[in-house]
This record gives sequence, structure tokens and C-alpha cells, in this order.
Amino acid sequence: MAGCITLLTDFGYRDVYGGVMKGVIVSICPQAQVIDLCHEIPPQDCRTASFQLLQAVPYFPPETVHIVVVDPGVGTSRRAIALDLEVGYCIGPDNGVFSQVCDRYPPRRVIELTQPQFWRTASPSLTFHGRDIFAPVAAHLAAGTDFTLLGCAIDPDSLVRLPHLTYEMTPQGVQGWIQAIDHFGNVITTLPGHLLAKGYHQIRIQGQQISLVHTYGDAPPQHLIALVGSHGFIELAVNGGSAHSLLGCQNGDALWLV
Amino acid sequence: MAGCITLLTDFGYRDVYGGVMKGVIVSICPQAQVIDLCHEIPPQDCRTASFQLLQAVPYFPPETVHIVVVDPGVGTSRRAIALDLEVGYCIGPDNGVFSQVCDRYPPRRVIELTQPQFWRTASPSLTFHGRDIFAPVAAHLAAGTDFTLLGCAIDPDSLVRLPHLTYEMTPQGVQGWIQAIDHFGNVITTLPGHLLAKGYHQIRIQGQQISLVHTYGDAPPQHLIALVGSHGFIELAVNGGSAHSLLGCQNGDALWLV
Amino acid sequence: MAGCITLLTDFGYRDVYGGVMKGVIVSICPQAQVIDLCHEIPPQDCRTASFQLLQAVPYFPPETVHIVVVDPGVGTSRRAIALDLEVGYCIGPDNGVFSQVCDRYPPRRVIELTQPQFWRTASPSLTFHGRDIFAPVAAHLAAGTDFTLLGCAIDPDSLVRLPHLTYEMTPQGVQGWIQAIDHFGNVITTLPGHLLAKGYHQIRIQGQQISLVHTYGDAPPQHLIALVGSHGFIELAVNGGSAHSLLGCQNGDALWLV
Repeated sequence: MAGCITLLTDFGYRDVYGGVMKGVIVSICPQAQVIDLCHEIPPQDCRTASFQLLQAVPYFPPETVHIVVVDPGVGTSRRAIALDLEVGYCIGPDNGVFSQVCDRYPPRRVIELTQPQFWRTASPSLTFHGRDIFAPVAAHLAAGTDFTLLGCAIDPDSLVRLPHLTYEMTPQGVQGWIQAIDHFGNVITTLPGHLLAKGYHQIRIQGQQISLVHTYGDAPPQHLIALVGSHGFIELAVNGGSAHSLLGCQNGDALWLV
Repeated sequence: MAGCITLLTDFGYRDVYGGVMKGVIVSICPQAQVIDLCHEIPPQDCRTASFQLLQAVPYFPPETVHIVVVDPGVGTSRRAIALDLEVGYCIGPDNGVFSQVCDRYPPRRVIELTQPQFWRTASPSLTFHGRDIFAPVAAHLAAGTDFTLLGCAIDPDSLVRLPHLTYEMTPQGVQGWIQAIDHFGNVITTLPGHLLAKGYHQIRIQGQQISLVHTYGDAPPQHLIALVGSHGFIELAVNGGSAHSLLGCQNGDALWLV
Repeated sequence: MAGCITLLTDFGYRDVYGGVMKGVIVSICPQAQVIDLCHEIPPQDCRTASFQLLQAVPYFPPETVHIVVVDPGVGTSRRAIALDLEVGYCIGPDNGVFSQVCDRYPPRRVIELTQPQFWRTASPSLTFHGRDIFAPVAAHLAAGTDFTLLGCAIDPDSLVRLPHLTYEMTPQGVQGWIQAIDHFGNVITTLPGHLLAKGYHQIRIQGQQISLVHTYGDAPPQHLIALVGSHGFIELAVNGGSAHSLLGCQNGDALWLV
């Protein structure tokens, strides 16, 4: 039985671009199970794609092939790549979308996709490598083609990396940043939950002090709280509401664990 | 062959939360077919989840496992439960999301999920039981684990139930309420279609009288009509438009069949 | 092994209508792989459904069954049909949604769905033929039922066709029209890419001259460009932005290749 192939894109839901990729996949590997991770990455937002990919990959079987199509440089000289990680395979453009997953799980092997016999056509569209290169290569990999046949080995250190968002010890406390805001308006920081073992107990942002609790229901409705989210980072939330709306904050804003 | 597992959540589509649950499921039960029912239940809206679940469950094979994750009380003392119904299995929080499906199909057996060996981890996240408890338990059930092994039997009468939305005979006619508004702006009432056999022929709402017809195309474009929808309830609709926009109504508003 | 069944609808994502169809399908043909093409066709917009369907069908295996439910005339005298094309089977209402796919791939056989033994019920809902007729017929076809058993042969020339959007040679150049606008704000015209072989090199719209390039990254950010898109038509785009927002244009607007 072939494994799973997942899709993470900025295609949205009003066109058939994702459906077309699934058609290409099942044409090559009919027994593959194709799973949508998310198609609402903001257009061309490689940083959000990198964050979301890392949230999902570790929960899939390690033979899964994850395709990422957030690809502003499609058709230019940016490389098309595939990665072999301890937790799965990844396929997509070399533009930083794999930054966070590579930070956590250093790739064992990386190749540039240079073998057109595994593409849909030897003359791929200049605007849709998801359909013409990434989907067919993923399908061949899921169907059993050896990873090394799909392209030429390249140096993992040559991959495009986005600046690493992390945290810093400062005189005012541990400084972190907002790295994502989810559908519920939960505000996800770069501060890992294990920092709480050091005795910190509040988040300071925009002059407010926000107390740390264990779960959403620990606070009165509409009350701003901080807690360790399911991804392992400290997040800001509102019981029954949106921390994002209440704070009016955005990705990249600074905050402090104190 | 393993059966289907469906997902009904308030996760929206911009994050990978639903994708993560699918990863957990296929890691345990690779042959399960995972089907999205809907991920756009309004955040924390247990009543809408309960309505939508009942619309879908009867159309699936009875060995299907339906997971509901609309879970404002996650991580608190609310129970995690599984139900064995004539029409399928249901898994999720004990917060009322199963009210309508239990009214229609009284559960044969109900258990509280108390067996961590079927969870993703014995220390589940306090904020994402969908990933750590519901998805793995559903996958084990679909893979053939006996229902009774997953937890302890509890009394079906002890389940949290939302107030029952139904209809009442009044001097002005049969009073019902709006229980849902769909993507097309169709306004779905609590009035079952069989009431029409009693000779009623109009809906009264906001001082307007709306005639009953058989299907959307029976009315001129942009004309407000009432008809029995595919769910069996009387609904208000506009041929080629939105009854919701035209009426400016909302869930819970009263109307009368006369 | 049964083939794929795809869904293209105007259901949106907040209700379980698409999920219900999947339940009906797997109840009849458990081994079918059900794939979402798109559920965000604008309500009742048969032209957009016709365009999107043509973009997807050729990329699927030819035994795939494509269901289209954009069906303003459901429950009226409009026919329910199935088409056998060189590139796949199509099932849905006879209201023009198959216009473009039939222009490109003339149907080998067309039937009207007149055999209730392949429906969910002999008394289908008047408002949801997707659930009661199209999904069960598609599932029987995918499970191996012979195409000709599903209904009565009808003349392909009797199908409802939408007016053909194409292009015209005029003294000012080749006139085309906007036929679709995608999630990225790319503006897709009716001008096929092969026209470029004739020496044209600009698009004129709203008094602006827009240069033709090869891919998005060939232009400076926020710059309006024209190129041949992945569907083979000339499209207008903005590197890192939305041509639709910049131009304020809409479907049906005219433009010229000069």
C-alpha cells in the first residue's frame, strides 16, 4: 500500500488548482491517500507556510510525502527540491518554506528535482510547478520510486532559510515575537513552553500584563490569558473570543515573558 | 477494510489543525478513509454543530466514526465521550454537540473515554483533545478495537443536552424558530415538513406572508418562498438570491405556519 | 479497484451538503476515492462551473466520474444527465455547466438519468439532486455499473449550451474577454496562448498597454504583466499582488491583444 501525500498551498478554495494536483497524483499513484493540510496560506507568505508545515509533519507516518506550493518565484531560477527527513519527505520550491521543519529535523538528504521523466511533461508550465513537477514527483515517490533517482544531491546548507524567529534573554525578561495568529484569533508566540519551568508567570505586551493559565476554560469569558498551546509555544487567547481582535496585534510584534 | 472517519469542527481552513488530526488517524489506521464534513462551524457554537451533525450522519454507513471538535471546555472537567448509535459512532466532548443526533437516534451505549492506551499520549494537551484523544480513539475504533474497551460505560441520560428546539401549537398557528442559515442564505426552521399535510399553506414572519411552493424554480427570481428542504424541515428561500439577506433574520427568530 | 469521484459545487464550506454526498457515495461504493475539486463556485454560476470543470477534468484518469452540482433549476423540468467523454465521465444538471468540457471533448454518449433504481430513493428531494440522484449514480458508475443502464440515450446536440466565449479578429487587434478571476487576483482571458506565435506582444485594457512576459517573477513587484497561464490562456497578473484589485475589472470585460 502506498502512503499519504499531503498538500499545503496558498491556492485558496475558489479554484480547482488543488484538485488538478490531486488528479495528477492519482493518475500516477491511484492508491495514494491525498490529504489537504491547508490551502489558505496567505498568498506568497513563505514564513506562514514554514510555520504551518512544522505543526503538521510530525503527526504523519514517516513515509508521508508533503508537498508545499507557496511559490512566488515559480518559473524563475529558484530550485525545485525534495527533502528526506526523519519525519517524512517534503517537496516544493527552495524559497524558505522548509526552514522551520529543517531547523527541527535536519534533512538526511536533499535533492534538486532535475529528472523530467518524473514530471508531468518535460516542458513544464512556467507558472504552475505544483501541477507539472511537485505533484508528479510526489506521486512517483509515494509509488515506490527511489528518492535518489528524482534528482541530484545538493548540500543541505545551500537551502534558502528564512531568518530564525526565536527568543532572547533581555533585562526586561525573555523577549519573543508573534509568529502566527490562528482562525480562533489565538496569538502564537516564539516562546517555547519549557521556559515556564524557570518561574516566569506573565506575558507583557502593549503595556498589559497577562497571566499564565492552563487552558481556555480557566479564565472568565472574554478575558485575555496566556497558556502553552498544543504546538508547544506560549499563546495568547481569550476564552470564547479572539485575542487577535482584542489586542490588534500582528505577526512580528514583540512581547516579553516576565 | 476499515470504514470511514468524518470530521466536523470549528477549526476553519487557515490552519493545519484538521490536517494534524488526519495525520494522527492514518498513523494508527492507514486504511481509514477520512472525510471532511465541515470545518466552518462558528467558533464554539455547539448548537450549530449539533444541527449539522444530524444532517450528515444518517447518510453514512453505520460503521462510520464521526468526530466532532467544537470544544470550548477542552482541558476542563467536561467529559470526552463516545456514542454507539444505530446510524454510526460519534466521538467528541460532552457539551451538547450530540443533542440532536441523540434525540433522533437514542444511543445504544455511551462511554467516557478513560483509557489512555488508546490516546496519542497519556499526557494529552489541555487545548487540543481532537489531536490527542478523539482522533486516536476514532482510529482505533475504525481499525477494529472493541467499543467497550475505549472507556467506561456511562448513563446516556447523564449527557449534556442543549434545549430542544421544536415547535408549538398556538392560537396564531404552529410556532417554530429559525435553527440554521446555510451558505445560500436559505433559512431553515424547526418546522418539520409533515405539518403541511394538515392544510397549512403559508409562513408568517416579520409581518410578511410567504407562500409554500415545491422547489426554488417555482418562484420568479428574487421572490421569497417557503418549501420543504432536503433535510425535511420547512425553509425560507429566494430563487437566485438569499432569504437571509432579504429578511435580515437570525437563528432563534420565531415564525408561524398558518 | 474503483476509480475516483470528484465534486464541483457551489455549496461553500459552512454546511455539510458536500459531506452528505460523500456519505451517499461511500455507502454504495466504499472503495471509491472522493476528491473535492472546488465547493466555492459562486451560487448558481453555471459559467464559472463550466470554466473550472474544464481546467480539472483532463488531469484525472479517464475512468474518473466528475459530479457537478451548480443547479438553480433543481426540481424543475431541467434534465439530469451523464456524459461519457474521452477524458472522463460527467454527471449533473443539463443547464450549461458542461459547455466548455463538451466544446473541447465532444461527448461519445449522453444519457438522461431516468433509472430510479440507481438513485438514493425513487422519490428524490426536489431541492437536492446532488444527494439523491447525482451522487448515487456516480457511485454505481464507479462501482462498475454499465453507463448505458443508468438512463436513456439522448442527442448530444440537445444539451443546453452557454454562449461560447472566444475571441475575434478586429481592426484594433484580437479582441478577447475576461472569463475568470482566480484567488490570487489573476485575470484569465479567453485569448489562447498560441496567438502569441503571430507576433503580438501587448494587451490593451482600460487604455493601458500591458507587456507580455514569461512568468510572474519576470516583473518588478506590484507591476502589471500579461503572460500565458497554466491553463493555456493569456492572463493578467501582478507580481506579489492582485491584477483584479489593480484593474477593478470583472468577468466579461473586453480587452485586446495587439
